[in-house]
Amino acid sequence: MKMHGRHYRTIWVKPQDPSVIQIIDQRFLPYEFIIEDIRSVDEMARAIKDMHLRGAPLIGAAGAYGMYLAVLNHPDANPEFSADALKSARPTAVNLFYGVDAVVSAIQKGSTGKEKSKAALDAANAFTEECVEQCRLIGSHGLKIIEEISKRKKGKTVNILTHCNAGWLACVDYGTATAPIYAAFDKGIDVHVWVDETRPRNQGARLTAFELGEHGVAHTVIADNTGGHLMQHGMVDMVIVGSDRATFTGDVANKIGTYLKALAAKDNDIPFYAALPSSTIDWTMKDGVKEIPIETRDAKEVKCIEGWVDGQIKEVLLTPEKSPAANYGFDVTPARLVTGIITERGVCEASETSILKLFPEKKTVL
Amino acid sequence: MKMHGRHYRTIWVKPQDPSVIQIIDQRFLPYEFIIEDIRSVDEMARAIKDMHLRGAPLIGAAGAYGMYLAVLNHPDANPEFSADALKSARPTAVNLFYGVDAVVSAIQKGSTGKEKSKAALDAANAFTEECVEQCRLIGSHGLKIIEEISKRKKGKTVNILTHCNAGWLACVDYGTATAPIYAAFDKGIDVHVWVDETRPRNQGARLTAFELGEHGVAHTVIADNTGGHLMQHGMVDMVIVGSDRATFTGDVANKIGTYLKALAAKDNDIPFYAALPSSTIDWTMKDGVKEIPIETRDAKEVKCIEGWVDGQIKEVLLTPEKSPAANYGFDVTPARLVTGIITERGVCEASETSILKLFPEKKTVL
Repeated sequence: MKMHGRHYRTIWVKPQDPSVIQIIDQRFLPYEFIIEDIRSVDEMARAIKDMHLRGAPLIGAAGAYGMYLAVLNHPDANPEFSADALKSARPTAVNLFYGVDAVVSAIQKGSTGKEKSKAALDAANAFTEECVEQCRLIGSHGLKIIEEISKRKKGKTVNILTHCNAGWLACVDYGTATAPIYAAFDKGIDVHVWVDETRPRNQGARLTAFELGEHGVAHTVIADNTGGHLMQHGMVDMVIVGSDRATFTGDVANKIGTYLKALAAKDNDIPFYAALPSSTIDWTMKDGVKEIPIETRDAKEVKCIEGWVDGQIKEVLLTPEKSPAANYGFDVTPARLVTGIITERGVCEASETSILKLFPEKKTVL
Repeated sequence: MKMHGRHYRTIWVKPQDPSVIQIIDQRFLPYEFIIEDIRSVDEMARAIKDMHLRGAPLIGAAGAYGMYLAVLNHPDANPEFSADALKSARPTAVNLFYGVDAVVSAIQKGSTGKEKSKAALDAANAFTEECVEQCRLIGSHGLKIIEEISKRKKGKTVNILTHCNAGWLACVDYGTATAPIYAAFDKGIDVHVWVDETRPRNQGARLTAFELGEHGVAHTVIADNTGGHLMQHGMVDMVIVGSDRATFTGDVANKIGTYLKALAAKDNDIPFYAALPSSTIDWTMKDGVKEIPIETRDAKEVKCIEGWVDGQIKEVLLTPEKSPAANYGFDVTPARLVTGIITERGVCEASETSILKLFPEKKTVL
């Protein structure tokens, strides 16, 4: 999407020098825009581990390009060492495994170093393009929903609320929850986005607000507490969120607080959509609230917050020094609160029957 | 309540010197504990205006003591000048008017300066004691609800979620939402409080966590997004919040985000109580969502946050510099989501019939 007036992805091969992968170092956003050159698999592993980049689809692409760098620099080394180094950088990120493995299997085709490198680069590019294409398709399916609302409102602003960052900064381009929004904006539909700041870690205030603003999409940052009031007063037309894991029955795990917005949407008859590539659906899980494991993270993310002061990023303490804090990363929104799921194949209801209509090949898995 | 191991109120007459009123300067909590000497009505007006103290009941007491200082220092001056100066310090705080007027009418009784000062001090003390007594009564009525839950759980920890600060720091002692919690704790009931950090302004993380911790009550600070997940997993036994204004039909306005917690409580069959002195009930309003005006505040409170860093309080920027933000201060929880209202006269249902049973004298007002 656009940033500083030109098109960017979150990761790309350096045009003048294909031995370098470039990424946006997201740790400094929105305060500083830094492009980082990655020249080796070790540098990529460190970038993944230390969260220079984040977001499941982007981590997958980073894993793929990391393997390409490994093969390019040491074509005769055992690729499994590099694969392990990359995978252990974020061991719970399943997309990382997909990205790394796609390249590992591709290099079997080559025998010379040059052939292997070419096969690795082709595979990494293909993996990345597929990620982009899935997001683009999610955007075009979700666009129809926004278009209908815009028509019903006779062209008046469509107000969309989103939570966390399921934007292009978490992917390679377009994003998941943001893809329909960008598609609508690019088509000239009048959209405005309520951006939940998304405590803790504030991915909404820092990343979603940044990427929407850079692309030119009208938006307003709000405290996470605010969405219910807006919905009570007709100021939200739809909610779109991403998902970290969904069940085949339509329960949706996403950043903590999503469930509260889904309740408010239901209470005010506002459509609530989850936008996700089908790789997010866990075909082994039926009851999301009971089965999806919820990561507990460092209490420090609740007790403190990072912000910009005196020309630098600083972390400030928000609570009494000795007060304990708890940090649950995600919650699960039950299918009964989800109006629909926007996937790369189209939009379906949040139910086993409707999901399987879009993905009939999964019937044998269940 | 207790702080640093001894009993404090938020405002008091200096024991060795009744020409001085002492307050806790809350601007520095929880990072620094500062007691401020107030020696004149001007100093009190500034303390109110610049939020050295806040919370409707406490502002009322501050207004009363401010008038006492005016009379003490200038017994022959027209008290209306001082009354106006105090009232204009926070013009929307109706309790401030009550506190000031109570003292203004009392000084009519005296003719000498000494008599006037004594009448003023007696009236300010009486106004303050009534505020304390109302909170104490709310505590003792609410205690019964906690006791029942504790009995049902066979003495296991009662987990209570609260939002914002309706604690003793907003009152003179006990608080409103916190009064039943302190009563239960002081009686030896095992209670634990989930403290919503309460963005923006973070009154939960800064003040509620501080006062609970100082009194010794077990508590855990959480992001405002977290309550729904906790309720889904049986980790909350009841919710108690305060209120800034309630309708006679039981709709409750409180800090933004309260409505979201009420929705989650309803969805998980968890009792949701509002604790409030009856002076909070607006006997002219029937439909809270439609009628209660919601204050919009400075967007800066969303874009920035205050915290403790490098040995001082600093404000850090949380969003892109140019992203707009919206700051709605309150929301309204409809009566259908409120299990009960805890008042100084007892607990009632959130309905016109039940509220009027406790306050039958108000039937003539409606």
